[in-house]
Amino acid sequence: MADIQESKESLQESLQQVITLLNKHKLIEGLVHKQDMPKQELVETLVHRQNLAELQKKLDALHPADVAYILEALPLDQRLDVWELVKAERDGDILLEVSDAVRQTLIADMDSEELLAAAEQLDTDELADLAPDLPKDVLQDLFESLDARNRERLQSALSYPDDAVGALMDFDVVTIREDITLEVALRYLRRIGSLPDHTDKLFVVDRHDVLRGVLPLKRLVVNDLDSGVAEIMADDAVIFHPEDKANDAAKAFERYDLVTAPVVDENNKLVGRLTVDTVMDFIREEAESDMLSLAGLREDEDMFSSVWKAVQNRWTWLAINLVTAFVASRVIGAFEGSIEKIVALAALMPIVAGIGGNSGNQTITMIVRGLALGQVASHNMKSLLQKELGIALLNGLIWGSVLGVVAYLLYDNVALGMVMTAAMTLNLLLASVMGVLIPLVMTKFGRDPAVGSSVLITAMTDSGGFFIFLGLATLILL
Amino acid sequence: MADIQESKESLQESLQQVITLLNKHKLIEGLVHKQDMPKQELVETLVHRQNLAELQKKLDALHPADVAYILEALPLDQRLDVWELVKAERDGDILLEVSDAVRQTLIADMDSEELLAAAEQLDTDELADLAPDLPKDVLQDLFESLDARNRERLQSALSYPDDAVGALMDFDVVTIREDITLEVALRYLRRIGSLPDHTDKLFVVDRHDVLRGVLPLKRLVVNDLDSGVAEIMADDAVIFHPEDKANDAAKAFERYDLVTAPVVDENNKLVGRLTVDTVMDFIREEAESDMLSLAGLREDEDMFSSVWKAVQNRWTWLAINLVTAFVASRVIGAFEGSIEKIVALAALMPIVAGIGGNSGNQTITMIVRGLALGQVASHNMKSLLQKELGIALLNGLIWGSVLGVVAYLLYDNVALGMVMTAAMTLNLLLASVMGVLIPLVMTKFGRDPAVGSSVLITAMTDSGGFFIFLGLATLILL
Repeated sequence: MADIQESKESLQESLQQVITLLNKHKLIEGLVHKQDMPKQELVETLVHRQNLAELQKKLDALHPADVAYILEALPLDQRLDVWELVKAERDGDILLEVSDAVRQTLIADMDSEELLAAAEQLDTDELADLAPDLPKDVLQDLFESLDARNRERLQSALSYPDDAVGALMDFDVVTIREDITLEVALRYLRRIGSLPDHTDKLFVVDRHDVLRGVLPLKRLVVNDLDSGVAEIMADDAVIFHPEDKANDAAKAFERYDLVTAPVVDENNKLVGRLTVDTVMDFIREEAESDMLSLAGLREDEDMFSSVWKAVQNRWTWLAINLVTAFVASRVIGAFEGSIEKIVALAALMPIVAGIGGNSGNQTITMIVRGLALGQVASHNMKSLLQKELGIALLNGLIWGSVLGVVAYLLYDNVALGMVMTAAMTLNLLLASVMGVLIPLVMTKFGRDPAVGSSVLITAMTDSGGFFIFLGLATLILL
Repeated sequence: MADIQESKESLQESLQQVITLLNKHKLIEGLVHKQDMPKQELVETLVHRQNLAELQKKLDALHPADVAYILEALPLDQRLDVWELVKAERDGDILLEVSDAVRQTLIADMDSEELLAAAEQLDTDELADLAPDLPKDVLQDLFESLDARNRERLQSALSYPDDAVGALMDFDVVTIREDITLEVALRYLRRIGSLPDHTDKLFVVDRHDVLRGVLPLKRLVVNDLDSGVAEIMADDAVIFHPEDKANDAAKAFERYDLVTAPVVDENNKLVGRLTVDTVMDFIREEAESDMLSLAGLREDEDMFSSVWKAVQNRWTWLAINLVTAFVASRVIGAFEGSIEKIVALAALMPIVAGIGGNSGNQTITMIVRGLALGQVASHNMKSLLQKELGIALLNGLIWGSVLGVVAYLLYDNVALGMVMTAAMTLNLLLASVMGVLIPLVMTKFGRDPAVGSSVLITAMTDSGGFFIFLGLATLILL
């Protein structure tokens, strides 16, 4: 039995052992380079070889997912040392397990032949995941090495966008006819000898591959052997089309607790299946990409990528942020006269802007989540906006008053305190309106509301906050 | 066949239909209240009843998960109208499907008897999910209504924290002995007549319930009927303990593509199982809670909660943000003399602070993610810090120079431009160091690095940015 606690410790341990062996390897290499007495060299080479053999043994004993974990946790040079030692026949499986960014570093280290060999170990649906990262000539050779059926499958899998069911499905379907008995079905399965991973149901099709229903293994093993497939099968299974959005499919998997589900074309012909492990990976990736894009990272970044690559990944949002910060700065610039007269304004204005940004981000997170769950729509927009305005008003009056009193105590100026309270309340109201409108407008224009809405709301509450506070101060205090 | 595209449309359609019927219902109620001619009333009541009957029929036809979806998408008063109409025997299943916040509003609307009736429809592991939201007296009655075995199970399930395997496992295990043949096993299953949801394997135990291995249904149906269970079963299954972290279990499910897995106690005795649907819900909830806590929301919020409830959910982080904004304001206050002399400083300082915050949040997101995946640890901290420092230096020099030139052009002051460039670079370096250190220190002290680290880094880059920029300006320009 593989105990999870042990297996987790041993994964960390494995990583440590690999690092120790790698360091030893480097040390020995250094020695060999420095000294070139032939005898000495011989001994070193022996130690060297033993060391590498040990490392290789260690790696061979690990699950591909665990090797992938170790590769991702290592800086580039050590990563490539380990990659060299991984048995060639496991390359394909491991490439599938590592993250996109790390996969690129590994592929860059392989020549065409190695890549082709790795690709040829994979199923068509797995190939489709790998294909976008392969050099064009390798992809060409690969296509030529496939038989007609698999070539067609690969082409069709590649034709769907990343977020469509067609890009996630696999072709490991086991089909039976509806006019046979369970006994015949079981005999057929025993002849096949093994079933694909995650097979929890057989797909019942007619002679034209049109889906008639599904026969869960659960039902197969508890029902009378004389029963016909047609009477035992479920004919109300949840089905998908290749062009369905993966996100909708993921929700259906969660909602209806599916393990596998058939994918059919417009004529109800079975073309593949979707499995829960792929769906789970998709959910994990979506959640991560939301988190990354909220922080202004364009895509997944290899933890040990070069500084230059990382700069490229991050510069877009930094640049946008620079522009919005510049706009906010110009708003302040317009009121330089007021600040010169009451310098306290300069010290107080970031508070108004900051709290507005924080509050706006809370609102926007709620709305983005409601949109993702399909709970926010035109029919309830009004009540949502009312709620957020209510919260903003309450928070503005409470916290605005606190800060108004603080400003009065600090600068001994009642009017300044009142301006502070009024500006806080107005900026929070602005934040709540924008927090509801920005994601709704982005959705209306077909954009992902998670990407960049945080930067947009902060831009508005910064510039807006400075304008409201300095404007009110100029009107009232000067 | 339930077509996913249709089913999604029909889910939105169902919601619309429910809303239309609810509005009609309200209209009729209003009429009945206004007019009290007996004849008129009779007619209205008839229409009223027809309308409600239609609504009820609609709801009865929906999957519990879909009713939950509709309940979550409705404002409180309409939600409770619908909840009244849901057949009592479905209450339990639906309560399990709605979010925590919405569940509380539904439970608040039910009396003890209704709650007890709803709870009695559920399995022990489902009860454990519901129990924390039930009033004490209902929970007491519930305990008394259970038999000894289920009472013990419920007690043990409640004794584990939310994020332990023990809180997620269920007790729907089907066990067999290892000394029988597959034929005997199949005969036994046919006698049972049906298997629990998600059964992809049988658990092989000895007479003391000690786990000996697992027999996947896949293997059961493809192997010779004369084979013994012992030779066909897998004895290297991934197993869990009730006290294992749910997060580690979720990673193991993803890594090893599991559908179900046995949970055993310290003596290797089988106590329950973990299923992929529970794990998937857990992953989804974790991802959402990370997103919410990054935005400074304490917990899941009912989209239609009262303003007052929402304010309570959000005030903690707003208050913390208020304190950090106040500190930043005091830093500026210390340099009021300098700002009075060069008012341009007031307009430029938010740019330095803002870009620092944005860049720091990028770094912190990378590190938090690396920590969550177990890829960031002491052995690679140095190279990570070097990388982040490199990125900060490069970004600082590039963007700092751009802004330095802009500041020079705006204010015709070379020294001011140079101060801008230097301050940007220094603040980005500060952001990168803090972006690496904050999550590491939080983890060291056993805290979740996702909660609050964004607020902390922004606090540092704000106060730090103001201090660096205004300090440099005071030293060099005055």
